[in-house]
Amino acid sequence: MKPSRLFALSLLAFVQSAVAADWQPLPGKAPAPKDNPTTAAKVALGQKLFLDPRLSATGTVSCNSCHNVMAGGDDNRPVAMGIHGKTGGRSAPTVWNSAFNATQFWDGRAATLEDQAKGPVVADVEMGMGSLDDVVARLRQIPGYEAEFKKVFGGSQPITADNMAKAIAAYERTLITPDSPYDRYVKGDKKALSTQQQRGMQKFADAGCVACHSGPTFNGQSGASAGAFMKFPAVPGSDYEAKYGFSSDLGHYNVTKRDEDKNTWKVPTLRNVALTAPYFHNGAVVNLDEAVKVMAKTQLGMTLDDADTKDIVAFLESLTGKFPSQQMPRLPATEGKTFTY
Amino acid sequence: MKPSRLFALSLLAFVQSAVAADWQPLPGKAPAPKDNPTTAAKVALGQKLFLDPRLSATGTVSCNSCHNVMAGGDDNRPVAMGIHGKTGGRSAPTVWNSAFNATQFWDGRAATLEDQAKGPVVADVEMGMGSLDDVVARLRQIPGYEAEFKKVFGGSQPITADNMAKAIAAYERTLITPDSPYDRYVKGDKKALSTQQQRGMQKFADAGCVACHSGPTFNGQSGASAGAFMKFPAVPGSDYEAKYGFSSDLGHYNVTKRDEDKNTWKVPTLRNVALTAPYFHNGAVVNLDEAVKVMAKTQLGMTLDDADTKDIVAFLESLTGKFPSQQMPRLPATEGKTFTY
Repeated sequence: MKPSRLFALSLLAFVQSAVAADWQPLPGKAPAPKDNPTTAAKVALGQKLFLDPRLSATGTVSCNSCHNVMAGGDDNRPVAMGIHGKTGGRSAPTVWNSAFNATQFWDGRAATLEDQAKGPVVADVEMGMGSLDDVVARLRQIPGYEAEFKKVFGGSQPITADNMAKAIAAYERTLITPDSPYDRYVKGDKKALSTQQQRGMQKFADAGCVACHSGPTFNGQSGASAGAFMKFPAVPGSDYEAKYGFSSDLGHYNVTKRDEDKNTWKVPTLRNVALTAPYFHNGAVVNLDEAVKVMAKTQLGMTLDDADTKDIVAFLESLTGKFPSQQMPRLPATEGKTFTY
Repeated sequence: MKPSRLFALSLLAFVQSAVAADWQPLPGKAPAPKDNPTTAAKVALGQKLFLDPRLSATGTVSCNSCHNVMAGGDDNRPVAMGIHGKTGGRSAPTVWNSAFNATQFWDGRAATLEDQAKGPVVADVEMGMGSLDDVVARLRQIPGYEAEFKKVFGGSQPITADNMAKAIAAYERTLITPDSPYDRYVKGDKKALSTQQQRGMQKFADAGCVACHSGPTFNGQSGASAGAFMKFPAVPGSDYEAKYGFSSDLGHYNVTKRDEDKNTWKVPTLRNVALTAPYFHNGAVVNLDEAVKVMAKTQLGMTLDDADTKDIVAFLESLTGKFPSQQMPRLPATEGKTFTY
């Protein structure tokens, strides 16, 4: 018996032990690390950096291009598209509630939001800057940023890659979507969910989805498997696996190079999942109904019928929260004596 | 004598007749056409469409990508960059105060904002949709837009290319930047401009810049040459012409195919010009000092020294206005049963 099969069976056994679902509402605030407290000025600076396409080699791609905060925090594309139309192999995860992820990126290669923010700017198929030094050099040519970084971080040379990442991370920690119908329901408003959604919630628990999609963000940050990278597909050999090409990307293995990490992935949040089609690490599945059926089969060995699927989807739709209203920032000016593309 | 030389000389004669500069502040509101009154709901819809990258073939380029309303209304690139990193030959003009242009695009190929809005979505090197029908088909697959178009336009099938263009144009008519130091100065606040800026203002008039850059938006919409397409370079044979490759694009001629329109262009606004580097139709000039020297030489046959140039630039910086604060919209969801890229 192959290890992956063994793993799947032990997961099923775990599920069958039927832990009571631990329904938790989303906290209204995200905790910040000690060395990067969230302040209003830092958040304002981070928002500008997040929305600024000048952080890319061509001046056309910002963080927001793939993690659109005016939408579900992603790009609704199968795989993200960076400068010159380049694509990688993975679908952009949502930035909403990413403050509650134990690790960042699908494969968990960054431990913190601060670490994550330094990745895409220099990734060849994303923002394509040659190096973090190049990013810093460009930011230093924009006088408005010089002043704002100074206000937030102080010091004689406040524009550094670390400070850029800290400001972006501080902004991201404000991207929280509380007060979804689900949240109101678990806080006691029994009318917040429709009968179908309540039925779907029960089925979601009974089917065992909560084994991984647990905790306030449904991303496996609490319970028995907290923070674990999970095998996907866990039950190998399904038609879905071949059809959607799920196994060609080895996921977390690319980070650790340990055999047992092959095809394991961070458990993604289900918050606002109705807004973030298409689905899975490779964005291969277009709609949520199909995504639910795929998960049931590949993770739990179950074939869901249409009625159960629709109930669970109705429940998932109740995880769409309230998006904080945001003012559009004014980006500091490119003064024209500085850089060009 | 070639016609262009003749034209330049008559322009110089016109300038030397020294019309008194007619300094006008920017109106706080832009007039709307009778068949497209500006309403709050229409503006809100137009803002969403303007910011929505799903109007492009790849889902990555919105109107805002090249006309960034968080910045100077352009992209600070020499020439605009559309899907797959494709570029055309022209620099994106600012969308701010474009409501006060007599025609749209550098070459004036659209008469109205409504007409203009239907261009970039289907341009191969911009948003790359196959046709306006394709844009409409995509918008109709987004249920949230169906509801909003209905609210604004009514009718059984409210999503049409014309209505899309009307909503975008209505939004653009709100993109006005009044209350610049210049505006406050001409309204009577004599301290609104520095001594250098006042000196620059006088030199701007004396040099003859006002022959074309007249009226409240400094785009030739008032005075003797109102709405005219102007030759650029008007004085041929300068070093600048060769250095910056100004003459290879025939401009308005591409629209009319009339010989006399060769190398003529719409007079661009100077409002917020300090924010919109690089300069000219091909974005060939990186900074504003050089742009001013180029204009003096190619349009007026004058060689400006550094001191005069700096004074005029200081005046141009006083044309940076106040940008209305804008709320970030929530884009209606891609529901995942619809289209993918």
